[in-house]
Amino acid sequence: MEFKAELLERTEAAEQVVFSFLPEEEGLQKTIFSAMNYSVQAPGKRLRPILMEETFRMFGGRNEAVLHHFMAALEFIHTYSLVHDDLPAMDNDEYRRGRKTTHKVYGEAMGILAGDALLHHAFDTAAGSFLLADVDLGAAGKALKILTEKSGINGMVGGQVVDVEMEGKTLNDEQLDFIYRLKTAALLECAMMIGATLAGADENTVSRIEMIANRVGIAFQIQDDILDRISSTEELGKPVGSDEKNHKMTYVVLHGLEDSEKEVERLSREAVELLDSFEQEHTFLKELIVSLIHRRK
Amino acid sequence: MEFKAELLERTEAAEQVVFSFLPEEEGLQKTIFSAMNYSVQAPGKRLRPILMEETFRMFGGRNEAVLHHFMAALEFIHTYSLVHDDLPAMDNDEYRRGRKTTHKVYGEAMGILAGDALLHHAFDTAAGSFLLADVDLGAAGKALKILTEKSGINGMVGGQVVDVEMEGKTLNDEQLDFIYRLKTAALLECAMMIGATLAGADENTVSRIEMIANRVGIAFQIQDDILDRISSTEELGKPVGSDEKNHKMTYVVLHGLEDSEKEVERLSREAVELLDSFEQEHTFLKELIVSLIHRRK
Repeated sequence: MEFKAELLERTEAAEQVVFSFLPEEEGLQKTIFSAMNYSVQAPGKRLRPILMEETFRMFGGRNEAVLHHFMAALEFIHTYSLVHDDLPAMDNDEYRRGRKTTHKVYGEAMGILAGDALLHHAFDTAAGSFLLADVDLGAAGKALKILTEKSGINGMVGGQVVDVEMEGKTLNDEQLDFIYRLKTAALLECAMMIGATLAGADENTVSRIEMIANRVGIAFQIQDDILDRISSTEELGKPVGSDEKNHKMTYVVLHGLEDSEKEVERLSREAVELLDSFEQEHTFLKELIVSLIHRRK
Repeated sequence: MEFKAELLERTEAAEQVVFSFLPEEEGLQKTIFSAMNYSVQAPGKRLRPILMEETFRMFGGRNEAVLHHFMAALEFIHTYSLVHDDLPAMDNDEYRRGRKTTHKVYGEAMGILAGDALLHHAFDTAAGSFLLADVDLGAAGKALKILTEKSGINGMVGGQVVDVEMEGKTLNDEQLDFIYRLKTAALLECAMMIGATLAGADENTVSRIEMIANRVGIAFQIQDDILDRISSTEELGKPVGSDEKNHKMTYVVLHGLEDSEKEVERLSREAVELLDSFEQEHTFLKELIVSLIHRRK
């Protein structure tokens, strides 16, 4: 199958998995269920669950039911982070991917609570895997620890904090690297590491997978900065040049366009070499990684 | 030992356990570590970890290391809920127990992020128990599911949502019961159920424990409403009559002071009877429950 068609198929499949764990909009608290569903059902690449599933397949994972719980959990965490990011006290965004942001539709209090609810629901969904038949509790326990660590105060949230705190200030390389590593790369590392762990890969393998995802994540973020600088608004679906307008420090601002493109190339090459050092079949995963890094929108 | 002295000792011991899981204030993201520590170290009853530990002891629990992870996790969840509750878009509180609220000290963005960080850290702390030596993975898995369920969209957060949504509106008994059951009782149920589960109690026992904690939680909340009506500001440490001033619907508003006191009595009696139906030693736990329900501040 051609890559684009296959990606579309995988995206739809991942969405079905994620959506199947959303709550029914019933009960006295149905407003929050509605706000959660609105947030998760916004169009998205579903990159993290797809990466998790592909890595799981690469290492011959068998228990798909357990995998599905973690795919949904990770996408819920990603979504909650966007909902809170958009809040008035944070980025104060009115639109995301052409749709009103959650707090714009449901109000600020419900925006905060919808994010909270998604984070709770993420961990409840992951915890649900422990009660499944034939679950390998040891592997699920390790996967859960990866999920909580990579999303937490030494992962995504840690990066978000520094990003918010440094807004409008000049960053040095160390700070920028910290933010990219934690805010963006951590959840991609999380996705691929959980996929490998649930498939029964050993610790050394999981570390090598972490390195690959790390390169992909940082390259992905620098490419984001490049696109913000060069794309048209139409292609990108959000105002272009917004980083510069918001005085946001990015890799492109710090190093210029040319060096940024070189860095993306370097990271991309590293990720592919590391991936190719595995003998397991990984054609689609490689194409996916390369396409992500070099995407035009 | 006299009850008050024993309670003080247990409170200090529980605090030591909880504080031992707080992050060092180091690293680029140290502001958030500081905000987390500020929030958790605010004076508190440490009711939930104490109840968890007492129930664990009652059923002869052995692996204290695992217990400690869950004690801290639950107190972090309770604390995050207070931090988000106090935000400007929610209750907009400037003080809690005589100290500035987290967002008043660290700003609104950090207030949101400190709550998020505590919730992440709670689940990371609980997940850490899966990697401990001699952990019973089955019991820890069940305890984790109790933690995520009772705090989540069908537990504490669900109650919080309805509470926020119904603010200033007239509630009926069903709605008020829903809020009290989810917003207050759920985390007490969580505490005692996890204590019993980690001690190896069977499902039927855990259900009975849930019923006890449910009565305690609802009585505790009604007593809170009663105190808001009758105490002096000095005794309570927060403005008295604030519920009425805020047009907050409470059990006391709906049923009057006399019936509220009767209901507290009824629930208290039920809780004690249920507890006394266990042959396991539970002197301190009973005294604790009775003192909580009948507290004057």
